[in-house]
Formats: sequence, structure tokens, C-alpha cells
Amino acid sequence: MSSSAIEFARQNHPRFLDELKALLRIPSISTLPENKDDCRLAAATLLADLQRIGMENGRLIEGPGHPLVYADWLHADGKPTVLIYGHYDVQPPDPLDEWLSPPFEPTVRNGNIYARGAVDDKGQVVAQVKALESLMAAGGKLPINVRVLFEGEEEVGGEAIAEYVASRPANLKADFALVSDTELFAPGLPTLCVGLRGMIYTELEVRGAKTDLHSGMYGGAAPNPFVSLCQIIARLKDENGRILIPGFYDGMIPPSSEELDAWRSLPFDEEEYRKAEVGSRQLVGEAGYSVLERTWARPTLDVHGMPGGFTGAGAKTVIPAKATAKVSMRLVPGLVPARAFELYKGYVEQVAPAGVEVEVRLISSGDACLVPVDNPYIRAATRALHEVWGKDTVFIRSGGSIPIVGDLDRHLGLPSVMMGFGLPDDNLHAPNEKFNLKNFELGIESLIRFLEEVGS
Amino acid sequence: MSSSAIEFARQNHPRFLDELKALLRIPSISTLPENKDDCRLAAATLLADLQRIGMENGRLIEGPGHPLVYADWLHADGKPTVLIYGHYDVQPPDPLDEWLSPPFEPTVRNGNIYARGAVDDKGQVVAQVKALESLMAAGGKLPINVRVLFEGEEEVGGEAIAEYVASRPANLKADFALVSDTELFAPGLPTLCVGLRGMIYTELEVRGAKTDLHSGMYGGAAPNPFVSLCQIIARLKDENGRILIPGFYDGMIPPSSEELDAWRSLPFDEEEYRKAEVGSRQLVGEAGYSVLERTWARPTLDVHGMPGGFTGAGAKTVIPAKATAKVSMRLVPGLVPARAFELYKGYVEQVAPAGVEVEVRLISSGDACLVPVDNPYIRAATRALHEVWGKDTVFIRSGGSIPIVGDLDRHLGLPSVMMGFGLPDDNLHAPNEKFNLKNFELGIESLIRFLEEVGS
Repeated sequence: MSSSAIEFARQNHPRFLDELKALLRIPSISTLPENKDDCRLAAATLLADLQRIGMENGRLIEGPGHPLVYADWLHADGKPTVLIYGHYDVQPPDPLDEWLSPPFEPTVRNGNIYARGAVDDKGQVVAQVKALESLMAAGGKLPINVRVLFEGEEEVGGEAIAEYVASRPANLKADFALVSDTELFAPGLPTLCVGLRGMIYTELEVRGAKTDLHSGMYGGAAPNPFVSLCQIIARLKDENGRILIPGFYDGMIPPSSEELDAWRSLPFDEEEYRKAEVGSRQLVGEAGYSVLERTWARPTLDVHGMPGGFTGAGAKTVIPAKATAKVSMRLVPGLVPARAFELYKGYVEQVAPAGVEVEVRLISSGDACLVPVDNPYIRAATRALHEVWGKDTVFIRSGGSIPIVGDLDRHLGLPSVMMGFGLPDDNLHAPNEKFNLKNFELGIESLIRFLEEVGS
Repeated sequence: MSSSAIEFARQNHPRFLDELKALLRIPSISTLPENKDDCRLAAATLLADLQRIGMENGRLIEGPGHPLVYADWLHADGKPTVLIYGHYDVQPPDPLDEWLSPPFEPTVRNGNIYARGAVDDKGQVVAQVKALESLMAAGGKLPINVRVLFEGEEEVGGEAIAEYVASRPANLKADFALVSDTELFAPGLPTLCVGLRGMIYTELEVRGAKTDLHSGMYGGAAPNPFVSLCQIIARLKDENGRILIPGFYDGMIPPSSEELDAWRSLPFDEEEYRKAEVGSRQLVGEAGYSVLERTWARPTLDVHGMPGGFTGAGAKTVIPAKATAKVSMRLVPGLVPARAFELYKGYVEQVAPAGVEVEVRLISSGDACLVPVDNPYIRAATRALHEVWGKDTVFIRSGGSIPIVGDLDRHLGLPSVMMGFGLPDDNLHAPNEKFNLKNFELGIESLIRFLEEVGS
């Protein structure tokens, strides 16, 4: 395996890494209003690089939030067209004090680059752009037609891109999508992701008294919204991880026995996973399901934080007027977000304790999806990956949500190839997020070979 | 009723109010490290004023935290000695956006002064000092021997004063204590508080994974400490307000039937209280007990806030590594704090869900107490109050905790006269805390007459 594009990539690797670092220095945190300009700067930086390497029709697509980045190159007559997707926005970096190096000062240690967004998803976006640059630089053209669409709201629900895709614009016409926002199942093991969980992200607000009250004076008469919230949450999920909302599991499509068999043959040790990745005393979740089933193919419910009340050091004896919980549920094929939210909302209103008012707000949602594996793009991908990594590709699912994959299928009829190069211990959404530099390099080579294979 | 001291107080009321405002401008928030200097400034301000009006042996008593303020005047030979207690520290003012005027810019509206600490306890402390000043200015001496001891850690558990009192220093030798940190049962109704709930204030920390994790990747396998915390809290108290910790109620001493009868004759309407003070859809608490019983004579449990995780705007799909709840319990006579904490801690450890570690920390505690009413000081107080307010005194309890009252009894054998002038709707510990200016004025006069009565 060697092409002139891969030669170019290898020679330019130090510069590619510098460009990744520059992008990682921009704190493009999509959920925080104060980082709005940073999101725009990240978008503009990517757009400028796409234009520099020879992509055409480059522009920012504006909406109410952070812009989309678009560019194309459509001169490969008779060849397929790929829509390349990635996102330039990142999660907030807190808790800051657990980072070994600052989240927006990318730092190389032990063959990894550490920064918020290193693997999710700036490192992978840069790999895509640098694959295009290498192909363009080596051959003066691309092997297939390429459209690039990057978004800046993936971490906050991806509303802008969902609306844009749903409008079926002419410039998204393609034969398939390439999505690089996933990971290898294990180091050195080429992987394609073929299933994603959906989700609903909600806020559950409970209001009691009209104002904060002294817990000595009013304790025993005034409702405590945190206690009520805890009582509600305790009724949402039992201690074995089963969601208690009536009807929630109805219509769920379980994995096939073939898929379950394939998962059982993956190199995965639950005890090793507990120790190395989770680090908790024991793992939790529904009995009778493996960790891979529980995280890939079962719905789950998590609480992310409970703002309100007194959270400072020491003691404040207050009964807060209100309390909020950030609650999300991961969904699997057959569980539709809108229906899951209605069931959840109705159940919360029904089980809310006396004395308090509850309000359930939907913040974002996304469909679960399974992508087809019997198409020439997946076959080209497995050939390319075998060349670069020297191994057969494994097909996995991800417990995360990439709502765009479902949108591209539903609105544009595009099958997605989810080819990503993260690792399971890359600390996505957590302190010390990293991207392995070898995976960055081989990721670029894999993407080059994949586009060459599709075009051959 | 009129004495030259009362005449002096009336003539100097505008100045007294200005001095109260000056003290209220100092943000002496004892729980926040950044306000340490403000606490010291409040202490020094009070000390200077005590020295100015003629009190002797004035000094700050230093400890690891905020200083105590001490001064005395011991020249009333053959007369009793009172130990006057109050506190100069205040609760944090948050939530700031609910204040109609800034918490540390005292503002007069509708006959009230609004500020953090207005009634709890700076307004009452200033009333004590101004009563002493008026007596001293009018007669050149005090009618009884007086020791003053103010603390700056009441809102954070009162550790310094508890240790100081427990050491039984010679300069606290007295016959009784005067504590002004309570309220009138209703406007215009003179009130002595004769019972207080105790409390334990705790932090309950739950730890799951070793680091924050992505809820898509790990949801279904990694323990969620917020969900576990909610499950634990839901097991601490049922939806009727009954604490579920086994043995918790053992040894509890209920109020006598005479006391319950007296409470039933107080002017109190539960529906009016719900609407005017609490403002919740309905009141909560144990069935079969009146609001006064529930808030004065039944143990209760409240959650004040649940720090940790993601509390910003929008969505962050994180499984936090840890979550904390600030949990306090109010205790009643017969329920000893140390025992209550042990039962609580043991129960929490027992019911903690699988996969997480729990740590239960005691932040502060105080004994419940009942003060004797058959002594000359209480009789003198009721005479003084009748003169000033024109009505018979009612005896009530408070749901709050003033740990010093128990300490003074236990270590120094001092009965306390809890004579305070707040009102039930003064928003203690809440936004828009206030003190009625008429009560400030009549409070000073009541304290003057009380000391005169004891000395007569």
C-alpha cells in the first residue's frame, strides 16, 4: 500500500499536527453563550483551509446558532459523490481542575495529543481535511466528487444541521456520507460503526415555595423541591438500571442473534473495562445483558447535574424555591424520541409528589439508527482499512448519538460510513480528552485510501 | 410606661437606624472564605460601639474562625448578671436576582429595612446595644450587671462560641442569658421562645467512576452518582415527610398536652400561612400534626442543594464522577445530634446502591432545647413586654436552631430568655430579608424595660 497522496501525508504530518493544534486552541464550546465568537472562529478557520486546498463554493451557512461550513469539489465525472461530515464544536471542559494540561492548550504526551475536542471531533475533522489536501496535492484532483459539511452544534443537539438537511438542499446531493466521529473498538483494530443510540436530553424543574425559605422555620411544612426531585428520579429507574416509565420499552427492536454473536467474539473483557475505563467499584446496569449490549443496544437514563439551591462551601439552611435536574435518556432502534419524551413527561407529572409543580422541558433529541452494511461504500471502506491496518474490520455499534446519521438517511437517503479513529479511553466529554497521534496519522491514510477505493 | 432611657432611645432613633444600616452594609457572610475580612470588620464595628457607650473590658476573642466580641459592665452590686448573646454573621445572599434591592445596600420600604441580616441577626444585635446605650446615657449606669458575647459563626454551626462556652471561662459567669434571635408570633404580639429544634447539617457525597464519562458511551455500565444520590435521598424520607431511618424517632419527647393546647389557641391559620408565607400549591408534612407541631416539635429532613456535574445552560452529556447533596435534619428534644448522625450515616451506607461509594460528612450540629419558664427572668420579661406592647406574652417554640442556648444551659447552667422581634414573613435566609422598623424601635424599648425590670 502506498499512493502519492499517502506519501504527501507522511511528509506533511508535522504541519498537519500544528494545524490540528491551532484548531484545538479555539474554545468552540457550543453550549456556552460566551464562546459564540470562538465557534465562529473555528468555522472560519476550517473554511479557509478547505478553500486553500482547492475546495470550491466554500461558504458558511448561517442560522440562528453556530454556522455550518460547506465546500465541494465536483469534477470527478461519472464517479460517486460523498458527503463528508464532522463537527467543530466541543463540550465544556469542566471540571477544570482535573485536567493535567489546560484543555485549550493542546499538549503532546506519550504519543497522544491532549485537549478538549482532540478526538471529539476536531482531530477527526482535521484528518478528513488533510486526507482531501493530500489527494488534491498529489494528483491535482480528487478520486470522487466530494461535498464537505461541518457543523458547530453537535454537542447541543445539532438543530441547525438537522433543519438544513431536512430542507433537502441541492448542494447536499450525494451517494453516501462519510462520518468521522467514532472510534476503533481496540487499538489497531479497524472498525466501522453501524449503529447508534438516539437520545432525549431534558430538564426537569420542580418548584415548591414562592421564595427560598429557612429550613428551620419552614422544614416540615414547605415542600422541598430537591427532595421531590430525588423522589421523582428514584421512580424513573430502578437500582438495576431498568427504566420504570410504563410502556417505555414497547416497540424496541433488539439486535439480531447474528449481531449478538459477532459482539461476543470481539476482544472485550468487562473486568478490564471496569478497571481501565470506568474505575468504579463495580459496573451497573441491567442483569442478563453484557456491557456491550447495555451500552449499545439498551435504553439508559442518566442525570448530568442538579442545578439550584445552595452549592457553596459550608452550610446554608435554605429550602430552595426550585430545583432542576438535567436528565437524558439514550434510545435504541424502535424507541422514537418524541414518543419517549411524551411517556416520560406524562409519567413525571403523574408521580410528582404533592405540594410541588413540575415542568419537563425537552432540550434536544435524536433518533437511534442502524446503517446498512451491504453497499459498495462499506465494502470499499473495509478494503481500505485492511490495507492501512492489516486486519479485518469489525462492525460495532456506539452507545452515543450522532443524530445527523439518521437525518441523512431519512431526508437524503444517504447511507453513512462511520469511519472514526478514536480509542475507547480517549476521555470524550471528560477531563484529559486525547487523540492518539498514530491514529491521527493512520486515520488520514485510511481516509485517503477509502476515497481512492470508492473512486477506483 | 416611660423611663428616661426610653426617652433617649426615641430621640436617637434616626441615628440608631443609621448605625444599623452601616452594620448591614458589611457583607459578613461567615460561610464564604472571601468574606473573612468582612466578618472581622463587623466584629470590630460592634466592639468599638460597645466601648464607646461605656462597656468595659472590650475585646475580640480569637479562634481559628471569626472572632467573638466580648464586653462587660459589672458595677450593679447585688444585682443579677445577664449574658447578652447575638450574632453578627449572615447567610449568603443568593439567589441575587430575586432581591428587589441589593442585599448589602440596606433600603427602607413600607416601614421595613431590607438587607441580608436585617432581622437575622444584626437588627436584633443593634437593638441590644442601643438598649444598653440608652440605659447608660440616661442613668450613667446599667440596672443590672451585663456581659455581652456576640459571635460570627452562628450561620455555620457556631463552633468557636461552643468551644469557648464549653471551657467555662470566668468572664461568662452570669445568672441568665438574653438571646435576641427569634421572632414575634404575629405582628404586635409579644412573644417569648421557649423551645428550639436541634439539627445536624451534613454532606452526602457519592462517587462512581474515576472520572467524568460520556453518557452515550458509558450509560448502562457506569454508575451515575446523581441517580444513586436520588435513590438514597428517596429512601431517607417518605412522601408524607416521615424520616425512614430505623430508630430515628426513638427517645423523642413530644410536647405536653398543655403546650399543645396553648399552641391551638394561637392566632394561626394554616391556609393563610400557605398563601402568604410559603406560596406553594399545598403544604407538606406528616399527617395528623398541625403546621406548628410539624415545624416546632417534629424532626424534619431537607436537601439544600446538590453540587456537582453539569449545571450550566444547555446540554452536556456527562456521567459525573461524583455528586454531593447538602442534607440537614432538624431534631427535637430527646433526639441527640450525635446519635441521629450515626443512625443516618449507617443507614445511608446500608441503602447505597451497588457500584458507588458514599461518604457522609457532618458539617455542624446543635442540640434541641426547651428552656425553663418558671424563673424571675421570664416573669420580668413578660412584665416588660406587657408594658411596651400592651398584651400578654405568648410562649412559642421555633423550628430553627440556636445551638448556643443549649450550650449555655449545659455548660454554664444559664436559663435563656429568648426575646426577639422578627416577624414570620421576614424572609430569613431568603431574598428580601427585612426587619420591621416599628419592631426595631419597640424591641429596643422592650429590652430597656426588661433589664430595668430584672434590676428593680
